[in-house]
Amino acid sequence: MDLFYEKKQEALKIELKEIEYLKYTLNTLLYWDKLIYMPKGAIGYRSEIIQFLSKDIYNRFSSPKFLKLQEYFEKSPKKNEVIEATLKKIKNNSNFVQKIPLKEYEDYMNLITLSEDIWKKAKVENSFDEFSLCLEKIVAHFKNFTKYWGYKKTPYDALLRYYDIDINCDELDILIEDLKKFIIPLVKEIEKNSRDSIAKDFSGEYDFNKQMELSKYILSITGFDFTYGRVDLGEHPTTLAASPKDVRVVTSFDKNDLKVGIYNTFHEAGKGLYEQGISENLLGTLLAEVSSQVLEESQARFYENIVGRDKNISSLILKKIKELFPQLKDKEDIDFYRLVNEVKPSPIRIEADELTYILHIIIRYEIEKDLLEGRLDVKDLPELWNKKYKEYLGVVPKSFSEGVLQDIHWASGYFGFFPVYLIAELYSHQLKKTLEKECNISSENIDVENLKKINIWLRDNIYCHGALYSSKEILKRLTGENLSSKYYIEYLKSKYYKLYNIK
Amino acid sequence: MDLFYEKKQEALKIELKEIEYLKYTLNTLLYWDKLIYMPKGAIGYRSEIIQFLSKDIYNRFSSPKFLKLQEYFEKSPKKNEVIEATLKKIKNNSNFVQKIPLKEYEDYMNLITLSEDIWKKAKVENSFDEFSLCLEKIVAHFKNFTKYWGYKKTPYDALLRYYDIDINCDELDILIEDLKKFIIPLVKEIEKNSRDSIAKDFSGEYDFNKQMELSKYILSITGFDFTYGRVDLGEHPTTLAASPKDVRVVTSFDKNDLKVGIYNTFHEAGKGLYEQGISENLLGTLLAEVSSQVLEESQARFYENIVGRDKNISSLILKKIKELFPQLKDKEDIDFYRLVNEVKPSPIRIEADELTYILHIIIRYEIEKDLLEGRLDVKDLPELWNKKYKEYLGVVPKSFSEGVLQDIHWASGYFGFFPVYLIAELYSHQLKKTLEKECNISSENIDVENLKKINIWLRDNIYCHGALYSSKEILKRLTGENLSSKYYIEYLKSKYYKLYNIK
Repeated sequence: MDLFYEKKQEALKIELKEIEYLKYTLNTLLYWDKLIYMPKGAIGYRSEIIQFLSKDIYNRFSSPKFLKLQEYFEKSPKKNEVIEATLKKIKNNSNFVQKIPLKEYEDYMNLITLSEDIWKKAKVENSFDEFSLCLEKIVAHFKNFTKYWGYKKTPYDALLRYYDIDINCDELDILIEDLKKFIIPLVKEIEKNSRDSIAKDFSGEYDFNKQMELSKYILSITGFDFTYGRVDLGEHPTTLAASPKDVRVVTSFDKNDLKVGIYNTFHEAGKGLYEQGISENLLGTLLAEVSSQVLEESQARFYENIVGRDKNISSLILKKIKELFPQLKDKEDIDFYRLVNEVKPSPIRIEADELTYILHIIIRYEIEKDLLEGRLDVKDLPELWNKKYKEYLGVVPKSFSEGVLQDIHWASGYFGFFPVYLIAELYSHQLKKTLEKECNISSENIDVENLKKINIWLRDNIYCHGALYSSKEILKRLTGENLSSKYYIEYLKSKYYKLYNIK
Repeated sequence: MDLFYEKKQEALKIELKEIEYLKYTLNTLLYWDKLIYMPKGAIGYRSEIIQFLSKDIYNRFSSPKFLKLQEYFEKSPKKNEVIEATLKKIKNNSNFVQKIPLKEYEDYMNLITLSEDIWKKAKVENSFDEFSLCLEKIVAHFKNFTKYWGYKKTPYDALLRYYDIDINCDELDILIEDLKKFIIPLVKEIEKNSRDSIAKDFSGEYDFNKQMELSKYILSITGFDFTYGRVDLGEHPTTLAASPKDVRVVTSFDKNDLKVGIYNTFHEAGKGLYEQGISENLLGTLLAEVSSQVLEESQARFYENIVGRDKNISSLILKKIKELFPQLKDKEDIDFYRLVNEVKPSPIRIEADELTYILHIIIRYEIEKDLLEGRLDVKDLPELWNKKYKEYLGVVPKSFSEGVLQDIHWASGYFGFFPVYLIAELYSHQLKKTLEKECNISSENIDVENLKKINIWLRDNIYCHGALYSSKEILKRLTGENLSSKYYIEYLKSKYYKLYNIK
């Protein structure tokens, strides 16, 4: 044993542990509290605290002591895979921002602060003009950023790397072509065959306390451990971890539509299980977090769609619903299964069903790419947007607000983020294939016992590793393959052909 | 203007602001969250974070940069009263602990960690022996501590200074003699005249959600501002501030007895109003906090007893109770007023009524003094305890658990703390005298409008100053007098003579 090396390792661990204490306090307690329980008037002082802790974390990463340790390990030939992953993480955290000239980054940050408010106003007033000026500037910034970051073929490749999406545009485009070729005609076919809306049957008034009981039931059966986590009601669903032992799910409900709360909760359950499954041993390495947003989102979509909209599971949920809401006691399992799997093209992404959702993402990706590569001007965006909605989904937004202004993403600087949702979907289905084989589970036999098996498999094969391996490494190791659209298309085919009597 | 001085002042403010950010995060968000919402299993990692932030605060106070600034201002002839008060606060914070040899302090801290658990077990098992060994050690430590801290006449004087009680034992003993001379015979007189218990009339089952509505009503009428604060249900009532703009009241209820929740809430309302009234301008000076525990407790007792048990206010509360709990709709104002002012000697301090409460405190003070001055051995404590209860209150505890083991204070190291409660009571009545005169309010006319006036007066004359002035300075300035037992005794006389038909 090299005592000197051991000592350095110990020193690095102490530095990182302290950074993590601050990070968990900041990202979760201060932020979670702000979301859920903070009195409104406290926002000013809270913002000061948040700014201070962020600066403190930044300063710790750039302290001479820390930089020296970092340098030592970068040069050391005997570092293990954990240290390698930690070093990579440290570099990634700072690399993207550091490559942007400070002045330009500050301009961008100021722009983003303003543009969220401008977007909110624009959406309410259904007016594109003022926001379009913002968006032009945001696109211009991202054009520059991608230059600073570097890319081989298209600037969008740099964006994919920035969001930790480990494929390039050429690969992504092939996947998207496959999906479009299958999904667009399928949606049209279903539209032809579709019966009247079946959603009406379940509308009513649903007490939030009882909806919360339903959410707790859903979290419990997926394996979420309330000894190490909790669920609260918030304005938007999200999941925040104050360590793998303190995971806070936030869900949100609709008074008249139970589906909203149910699938928000299944979605966040996936994230919550991931966070709870991360090995505590990774604390002190910066790796006690999800591997990437893609992989986190894949788990959210796995639980939301593959588990939550499964036939057996939807029957289980309906049984609980009937206990909580006796007015629904006459509903049949098949009606509920149809309700939660109904295909119904809508201009609004967040209201989309499982099948059409991906088309919303593809439209945004194609538009972002056009904007970034200079083929599209922001002023012509609404026209192209509506054209694509007509073409892919057969619907046309009636206003800017339900069209091009519907999402906050661009206003918040999440330009180029949408592919995360699409790739996550493919991940979830490809990983499922291995899971089904190794656990001897199929969609015919998902019950509470098998949900336990599923959670254990995901934990032992994915979650426990935290950010030690990249999503791509995990996929490759578990499936032996690169990312493919095959499994997702197979799933859609088998499910929707049956559901809508398509031959 | 001296630019150099200004610059130093700015530098000190930045240091102190950062310390405050950490302190508010630590004392309130991490701790409040731990009390109310933290999942049980998170305790281990949370403790690490708390330890880390405590150490960080300690390190900031003892950094060379900070010590240099401190030295500069100590020597500067032109410092203003704010800087003077800040310097005093910094010194006080560290002085007491620094005077204890590190090894001994660590031994003491280890002992305290153990003794709370031993006390809990002892109380459950009604066994004094094991805990008595702990208490002997704790008393021995405090004997040493008071030597290190120094005192003129009795070691208890050092304890009074430690808890920021700004009178000495000689003065305290005179106040206590007056109180005993008046209260002990009054309690006996009341016992003779007292009717049957009237508490039974109001017993029932009271839903916690509705009790919470009642608490919110109470907080609202006292002037607590929910834009800058909130109330939650906890195991024990307390109030924690994450800045004067973010004040968190925690109350607790009894399922069968509304009084418990009502007076817990009035008590905490006093603390909450104090915290909310502190001037924001004091942030960055360490003075944006209550002047002392005595003054804070005086406000708690002011709202609990003088406001909350007032005749008009109790009618107002009963009106609200009837709205929330229609089963009580036939109750008369006078019954409720009698209920909440009933004198009923009990061996348990926290169940005590307003009048007998002080006797519980006096017993503890006298026993602590005997222990510290070596006149009493811990092994003889239960005997003396019971003897004093018989003599002062006419009741004898049936067990150690409802006698000498009832309070956690000694086990937690709050040895010598009890006088805070007594002195706070005297403060509240003496300050009330000035308030009544200046606001033209008497106990005959307290209504919602006058509660507003009261809050404004307290805010402008006491709360806004935070810890800029000592409690004693505030008392002197507002009343022109030193602490006296006169006003409290006057109040008790006028209230209880009438209530129990004593001539």
